[in-house]
Amino acid sequence: MQPQLLAVGELAAGQTLTVPVYQFIGSDPAAPSVYIQANVHGAEVQGNAVILQLLRYLRQHPPKGDVTLVPLANPLGINQKSGEFTLGRFDPVTGENWNRQYLDNQLPLPQWLSERQHYPDAELIATYRQALKANLQTRLQSPWGVTTGQRLAYTLQLLATEADIVLDLHTGPKSCRHLYCPEYQRHAIAEFSIPFTLLIPNLFGGAMDEAIFCPWWRLSDYLASQGRQLEVPVAAFTLELGDQELLDMTQAQQDAQGILAFLSQRGIVAESLAPAVMPRYATKLSNYRKFHAPQAGLVQYLVAPGSQVKQGEPLVRLLRLDLSEDAQEQLLTAPESGIAILHFASAAVQQGTELYKIMTRATKI
Amino acid sequence: MQPQLLAVGELAAGQTLTVPVYQFIGSDPAAPSVYIQANVHGAEVQGNAVILQLLRYLRQHPPKGDVTLVPLANPLGINQKSGEFTLGRFDPVTGENWNRQYLDNQLPLPQWLSERQHYPDAELIATYRQALKANLQTRLQSPWGVTTGQRLAYTLQLLATEADIVLDLHTGPKSCRHLYCPEYQRHAIAEFSIPFTLLIPNLFGGAMDEAIFCPWWRLSDYLASQGRQLEVPVAAFTLELGDQELLDMTQAQQDAQGILAFLSQRGIVAESLAPAVMPRYATKLSNYRKFHAPQAGLVQYLVAPGSQVKQGEPLVRLLRLDLSEDAQEQLLTAPESGIAILHFASAAVQQGTELYKIMTRATKI
Amino acid sequence: MQPQLLAVGELAAGQTLTVPVYQFIGSDPAAPSVYIQANVHGAEVQGNAVILQLLRYLRQHPPKGDVTLVPLANPLGINQKSGEFTLGRFDPVTGENWNRQYLDNQLPLPQWLSERQHYPDAELIATYRQALKANLQTRLQSPWGVTTGQRLAYTLQLLATEADIVLDLHTGPKSCRHLYCPEYQRHAIAEFSIPFTLLIPNLFGGAMDEAIFCPWWRLSDYLASQGRQLEVPVAAFTLELGDQELLDMTQAQQDAQGILAFLSQRGIVAESLAPAVMPRYATKLSNYRKFHAPQAGLVQYLVAPGSQVKQGEPLVRLLRLDLSEDAQEQLLTAPESGIAILHFASAAVQQGTELYKIMTRATKI
Amino acid sequence: MQPQLLAVGELAAGQTLTVPVYQFIGSDPAAPSVYIQANVHGAEVQGNAVILQLLRYLRQHPPKGDVTLVPLANPLGINQKSGEFTLGRFDPVTGENWNRQYLDNQLPLPQWLSERQHYPDAELIATYRQALKANLQTRLQSPWGVTTGQRLAYTLQLLATEADIVLDLHTGPKSCRHLYCPEYQRHAIAEFSIPFTLLIPNLFGGAMDEAIFCPWWRLSDYLASQGRQLEVPVAAFTLELGDQELLDMTQAQQDAQGILAFLSQRGIVAESLAPAVMPRYATKLSNYRKFHAPQAGLVQYLVAPGSQVKQGEPLVRLLRLDLSEDAQEQLLTAPESGIAILHFASAAVQQGTELYKIMTRATKI
Repeated sequence: MQPQLLAVGELAAGQTLTVPVYQFIGSDPAAPSVYIQANVHGAEVQGNAVILQLLRYLRQHPPKGDVTLVPLANPLGINQKSGEFTLGRFDPVTGENWNRQYLDNQLPLPQWLSERQHYPDAELIATYRQALKANLQTRLQSPWGVTTGQRLAYTLQLLATEADIVLDLHTGPKSCRHLYCPEYQRHAIAEFSIPFTLLIPNLFGGAMDEAIFCPWWRLSDYLASQGRQLEVPVAAFTLELGDQELLDMTQAQQDAQGILAFLSQRGIVAESLAPAVMPRYATKLSNYRKFHAPQAGLVQYLVAPGSQVKQGEPLVRLLRLDLSEDAQEQLLTAPESGIAILHFASAAVQQGTELYKIMTRATKI
Repeated sequence: MQPQLLAVGELAAGQTLTVPVYQFIGSDPAAPSVYIQANVHGAEVQGNAVILQLLRYLRQHPPKGDVTLVPLANPLGINQKSGEFTLGRFDPVTGENWNRQYLDNQLPLPQWLSERQHYPDAELIATYRQALKANLQTRLQSPWGVTTGQRLAYTLQLLATEADIVLDLHTGPKSCRHLYCPEYQRHAIAEFSIPFTLLIPNLFGGAMDEAIFCPWWRLSDYLASQGRQLEVPVAAFTLELGDQELLDMTQAQQDAQGILAFLSQRGIVAESLAPAVMPRYATKLSNYRKFHAPQAGLVQYLVAPGSQVKQGEPLVRLLRLDLSEDAQEQLLTAPESGIAILHFASAAVQQGTELYKIMTRATKI
Repeated sequence: MQPQLLAVGELAAGQTLTVPVYQFIGSDPAAPSVYIQANVHGAEVQGNAVILQLLRYLRQHPPKGDVTLVPLANPLGINQKSGEFTLGRFDPVTGENWNRQYLDNQLPLPQWLSERQHYPDAELIATYRQALKANLQTRLQSPWGVTTGQRLAYTLQLLATEADIVLDLHTGPKSCRHLYCPEYQRHAIAEFSIPFTLLIPNLFGGAMDEAIFCPWWRLSDYLASQGRQLEVPVAAFTLELGDQELLDMTQAQQDAQGILAFLSQRGIVAESLAPAVMPRYATKLSNYRKFHAPQAGLVQYLVAPGSQVKQGEPLVRLLRLDLSEDAQEQLLTAPESGIAILHFASAAVQQGTELYKIMTRATKI
Repeated sequence: MQPQLLAVGELAAGQTLTVPVYQFIGSDPAAPSVYIQANVHGAEVQGNAVILQLLRYLRQHPPKGDVTLVPLANPLGINQKSGEFTLGRFDPVTGENWNRQYLDNQLPLPQWLSERQHYPDAELIATYRQALKANLQTRLQSPWGVTTGQRLAYTLQLLATEADIVLDLHTGPKSCRHLYCPEYQRHAIAEFSIPFTLLIPNLFGGAMDEAIFCPWWRLSDYLASQGRQLEVPVAAFTLELGDQELLDMTQAQQDAQGILAFLSQRGIVAESLAPAVMPRYATKLSNYRKFHAPQAGLVQYLVAPGSQVKQGEPLVRLLRLDLSEDAQEQLLTAPESGIAILHFASAAVQQGTELYKIMTRATKI
């Protein structure tokens, strides 16, 4: 099975950059479809290994629903080296985060619906999807052009807009596995095999998951305000699969197993697969807090990702060998209790560097 | 005259970064005050030369109003080299644009005003200013900390919030001189000696000028909705003074002359100075369009900044030596008529690079 | 005419990087052959425009000797953006200068010649060239592999080793046109249309020109020590064609004219073309001096590339707005008299930055 | 105990960069002196933690010999961020490796010795050391200036030239602990508590250790050629203490213990401390081989640093999701048997990236 190649950009010397796309046609036309991409941030490679494991499974076990797999989704980011690491988080020309450039796909709902309110659900959904796609295509063809990042993002978004379910595979810097889940899909928490979940509201911040669900969530909300119930017909999630700059095929097998169990619940994978048994914790995105270095220095991270930390307990040891004896070693403590989800990747930090992200007020699901 | 040094950050190895601050106390307490900063984007150095010329003038001609001059306002950006150029447009760790991290200084107006609506204008203004400053200080002291860029931005914003007029000196990549002016200060266009002006609405996008005027504009608008007239009591402008990576003391003398004439109009400088005579053009920010490279390649910029270009006329010559003969040289044309204000700094561009910014629908003032 | 594509590397996401190669077979088998490449440093694009002009000429005027044209010779460098500029001078992973990674193609001469000293000149030359190429191929096929930069360099070197004359088209940062010429080709100075020349000795420093002529110069020297005269049968030059990040087709036409006149002198171009009339200056490479910033600061370059400067005359204005009044503006002066050939590209410099390169003790040719 | 601050450079915005220097005066004037520096490469922070542990020990146990400790030795490198990691291996302006810019401190030995050959050993050594220092000072005061990297390197070298023993604390990317030891100090292998050693010859490549010992080794060799025996009176070593971007105070305690045991053997530390018992392996530097990626792709490193690998055994799993099924997962194998000392830090590599460094032909000491 050879991937199709999707053109997403051109390098200054002229090379076309392409993204491999693997498509499986499902056996059951009634089953939902899924789009899974990985590596939109250049250093976050583990999702590719997971996709390779999914590919192997799906070749053996043809799915009921359509499956589109897009590894290496951002060649611009993956190829951007700076020193020994991959500088793939933002466009090196503009600084724009590669995962904040998707289109806020807004239709003027009152107007658009005025002529279509009599459509039955299925037709409304199909027509709305077409309109979302048309909007993306119009932007891509603007006579003023689009930015490098928009071209990439809109091209992927166009493909993802076809699907009922979208999974965007990322990693943290040094991170435990965690999930971004829209609030209306709260029930999905138990379907994934991921211990920690952030519940996100209906706000567009530029990321793929939001770019997929916001237009539909807005439609659903607007219809509700007009007295018509339509469940949000699509779902999109961001999965954070451990550390950046790390590839591990054994762990990828486990990650793939979790995703397949989710797809099994959703009727895309035929085989009956159960999610892993594990304690699960969730909190609202507004309770997800960033701890910034109050001072510069060299740091040792004292709390492993995935661990609980109590308010006042040490998070970070900070060395300052330029200062006098009593200030050479300091401990930075947690401002609030919570679960340390991830920490920064480097041991030398400026004042203000985001050292830890901590899930506060989490509840066990 | 030695500057005071304002601490704005700490480098990983421990060095404190400071910004020089020059303060002149005005002779007339009734005169407005002005805050002028330069070089928030690391490669945009010309404003420092302008500040040096202003310093020399003000030492000879003590001002009526208080004047605060802050050159080298972003040591983090200025010191960030990457190859031979200054990579000072965004935080190298996060990609955040240094001029998009100021605080959207929002007070809950209905509530805040409920107890203060009887205040006379002067008192209301003073109290509101205190509240804006207190808000900034609270953010800077958060137990979770602030980012590197926020610490810099909020610290400068705190100083600038004291002033009645704020000028933020920038440059374009390869650019003619132009001005960003809030719509309610339209009359300022004739007071500056700058040929091209973008009129900006009451929308916060993270820049210094907006961070200064938005809170007051909102106050004025809200009061108007309550039937009370209060002219926006502060003004803030961004001046774009030519090319980045260029320092020219002769040109700086001329730029300073223009700023002094403006300050003279506003009663801060005692001497009566007139703005330069020149044709002036303005348009709304929404008419300021970006032209992105439809293809990658090597480029020759054909329209000089400050020149008119008609729809369909060539903007850029694009070379593609990897292609066959007929595609090796192409011309990219303007999608609409307008004035070319600036173009990109490099001759080798990816697909999607912002090649030109063009002021369309400009009117002569 | 479509270029052949030469594979020179692979990006992390898998894309093969290729370099376009244009080949003209000469009408006269006895005429020498020439290899011309451009853009080995990513920001030095002007040579590509020159090659485009050469291509157009050669299509109209088929050459007597074989001509190989290789524009966009370093896709890795050209595509390496960092902020708005091209960071294409060194490998972003290792810091290795792209033009210091060619192979020092050394054969063990006494041993190698012991069996071949009776060869007539032409046969000796052909055999030696084969040995040089074989050596490059062996390196490229090492079981331990070669670095990214070596793969690129050796691949280009293999192609260039075929030719009798090699021209490597570069630019300076902000620079006048100048030439690097091996001492034994001193007579070439008058054949080029370039005002300033550095004469380089038989020392290998890693650059393309040296990689081509050093092995032959050593052979010639060694044979001379054995009492046999063999003129160095190849020549290699580096042409510095103005500023980096600048593309100008009109100037390229003039640059191409100069190169064609040189090729005409050497019997490769059939038409009789004369070099431009101009004063020409040359000096030994050891008299080419670098002036480093004794202090950090913002700088205005006061001497235009190509101009004379006398010892003690100002080269650079240095602003230091963090210091007290008397130190805010300083002048840095030339330590010795000479011709300013190029200066640094940025206006903000660290202590130690190479501000100017100055040709001292130049003589008029 | 407060460090002295040694100025080593100035940032573009004017800030002076300093390096902390801690000095202990030994109780025994006859005991040798030692200079220890850390963090010349910006991401290699562990040596600072080791120096902190040494500081604590030496405050409690005053040494017999003079001890100079220089943590955070390269503020330019430490402060150079690019994305989340420290881009501190080379000068971001020039690409020059910070540890390849020390002075090749060459005196014209025959000439210099001609007037001093009658000096007794101690006087010869003292005079030679003075001459080496004078040479460094002359370079630092050149009217043409020195580069940014030279200023840093020469300033540190001047301090280190005072000492009898120099330790330069580095780390690898992902690395086991290993030692660079000059061949004439082979007996030091057993004095350190480090399992793997590279024996380096009398060749100057620009690094600190070579910059210290080469001038003395040359002196010793030259005197030997004149029939006089003088043991090389100084020693310099580079210690590689694990992974970059990692700080670990517990491991640092162990690393410090090993260094103190070495200093105890050499009579600098008074307490009698024994090196750790462990198997030790050494080989010549020429047997230290680099394995470069034959293809680009995503990689999983299969052999842990410090482990044996046999010829033909898998070193690296390479994923290529852009290719067809059979090429999506490949294994790269060791071209020769040896000990894997370190591997690259990133999981996404270009063709030619240095994946592993392998010690071949090692012998057990």
